[in-house]
Amino acid sequence: MEQIKKYDILRIDGENKNIVEDIVVLEYPFTIFVDGKEVITLLCSPKSLKYLSVGFLYSEGFIEGYSAIEDIQIDEEKGRAYIRLNAKELFNKKLQDKRTIASSGAKGTMFYDMLDLLKSKKVEDSLDISVYEIKKLMETFNKNSDLFYKTGGVHACAICDNSSIIYFEEDIGRHNALDKVLGRALVENINLGDKMVLASGRISSEMLIKAIKRGIKAVVSRSAPTSLAVHMARELNIVLIGFVRGEKMNIYSNFSSLKF
Amino acid sequence: MEQIKKYDILRIDGENKNIVEDIVVLEYPFTIFVDGKEVITLLCSPKSLKYLSVGFLYSEGFIEGYSAIEDIQIDEEKGRAYIRLNAKELFNKKLQDKRTIASSGAKGTMFYDMLDLLKSKKVEDSLDISVYEIKKLMETFNKNSDLFYKTGGVHACAICDNSSIIYFEEDIGRHNALDKVLGRALVENINLGDKMVLASGRISSEMLIKAIKRGIKAVVSRSAPTSLAVHMARELNIVLIGFVRGEKMNIYSNFSSLKF
Repeated sequence: MEQIKKYDILRIDGENKNIVEDIVVLEYPFTIFVDGKEVITLLCSPKSLKYLSVGFLYSEGFIEGYSAIEDIQIDEEKGRAYIRLNAKELFNKKLQDKRTIASSGAKGTMFYDMLDLLKSKKVEDSLDISVYEIKKLMETFNKNSDLFYKTGGVHACAICDNSSIIYFEEDIGRHNALDKVLGRALVENINLGDKMVLASGRISSEMLIKAIKRGIKAVVSRSAPTSLAVHMARELNIVLIGFVRGEKMNIYSNFSSLKF
Repeated sequence: MEQIKKYDILRIDGENKNIVEDIVVLEYPFTIFVDGKEVITLLCSPKSLKYLSVGFLYSEGFIEGYSAIEDIQIDEEKGRAYIRLNAKELFNKKLQDKRTIASSGAKGTMFYDMLDLLKSKKVEDSLDISVYEIKKLMETFNKNSDLFYKTGGVHACAICDNSSIIYFEEDIGRHNALDKVLGRALVENINLGDKMVLASGRISSEMLIKAIKRGIKAVVSRSAPTSLAVHMARELNIVLIGFVRGEKMNIYSNFSSLKF
């Protein structure tokens, strides 16, 4: 299966803007079933799915070795692994354990909420923002990221309006950084309908959904988006911009709503 | 609370090797309790923990707004948030929902297994590997990463011996990429006691634990480790190396086991 997807995007480079074909990494929902039970949906690259399934079950302590697996069937079309175990003790123990741990905030039924969001969160009115303003905001955003320059180990997220950054947070997890700025906006009860999210890290469907849920209409990143994020942004008329670096940026969706 | 931790590390730059003080980003386990129930342990940066808690609960659909929260207490010392809700419907609904979703493989009780690992997985015999070999392997590893260069959106992981890469996988998720190479080693039943893990992405405690569980004695990355990963590597005599770029690398643990 293809690991990438091609999109026609608007590439900005200084004064030049051109529609070009861009290659975006595929984000593929892959659900693991063990003895008929749905264990997890991994958002992954659709390759080596048998190894991913086995590695995941081992890493998470569902199995102690490959011999614990009686049968494993991969349905690449549907994005599913059907696994039968002959050693079920660990698996049954795990299912009783409710504790969840992650450096990413991406848990729960987020992905399954997506379809509802696609219906309810479509943006009708466009954001009044220019490419020049976005470039300036990202320059400030990059300067802000002190912890990153010290350690090279964190992601940053910000909430901003057209002219300035309102909230800025850093975290070792992309999802945590975004939850921090969105959480602060919730606590301080500010309207996000006319604000943007700036991010240092990759924009996956999970990141985009977090922002969309709070009414954000534009997500701008120094890094790459995934195919699922591009697809959702286009469906919902969200402005999704990636690789904002110096004079360059890639606009993946809702080009027409931006000012130049 | 400090966002960083300082360690004396061995910095290699061409022929020079010096013990220098290095700044590593702090990885902080933060557990959210809602109405007395343990909901999740986030591995995060210890800042804006109230905002993180609120943002997480909203993003995950536990609350519909800040007004749903009656009281929130942060115990920074213990790394805990104690939250009381006055609107419990969503929360109760969520607790019944077992589905889990993530682009990171980091689920389950991994973090709680760490203490056991610290006892059972301590490395006694050192790996027979030289800094020169590691540099050469990372050069090959970087060249391999085709999907990354196409899209800028993926992480790579490899299993290698002293001279060559045995397995190489890429994925949009760091954890998936590692689970793929470890899973393949499990399927093909190869001994990992004399192998290394190479990674393009950050080495968190979760990444290190995955490798340690399979008997890996050295983890080498192009990126940064977290404080918890450095701490664990030192406790267990794992070789942990970060920022391997060109002639440079930072050795965070078990210096003495390496050849120069």
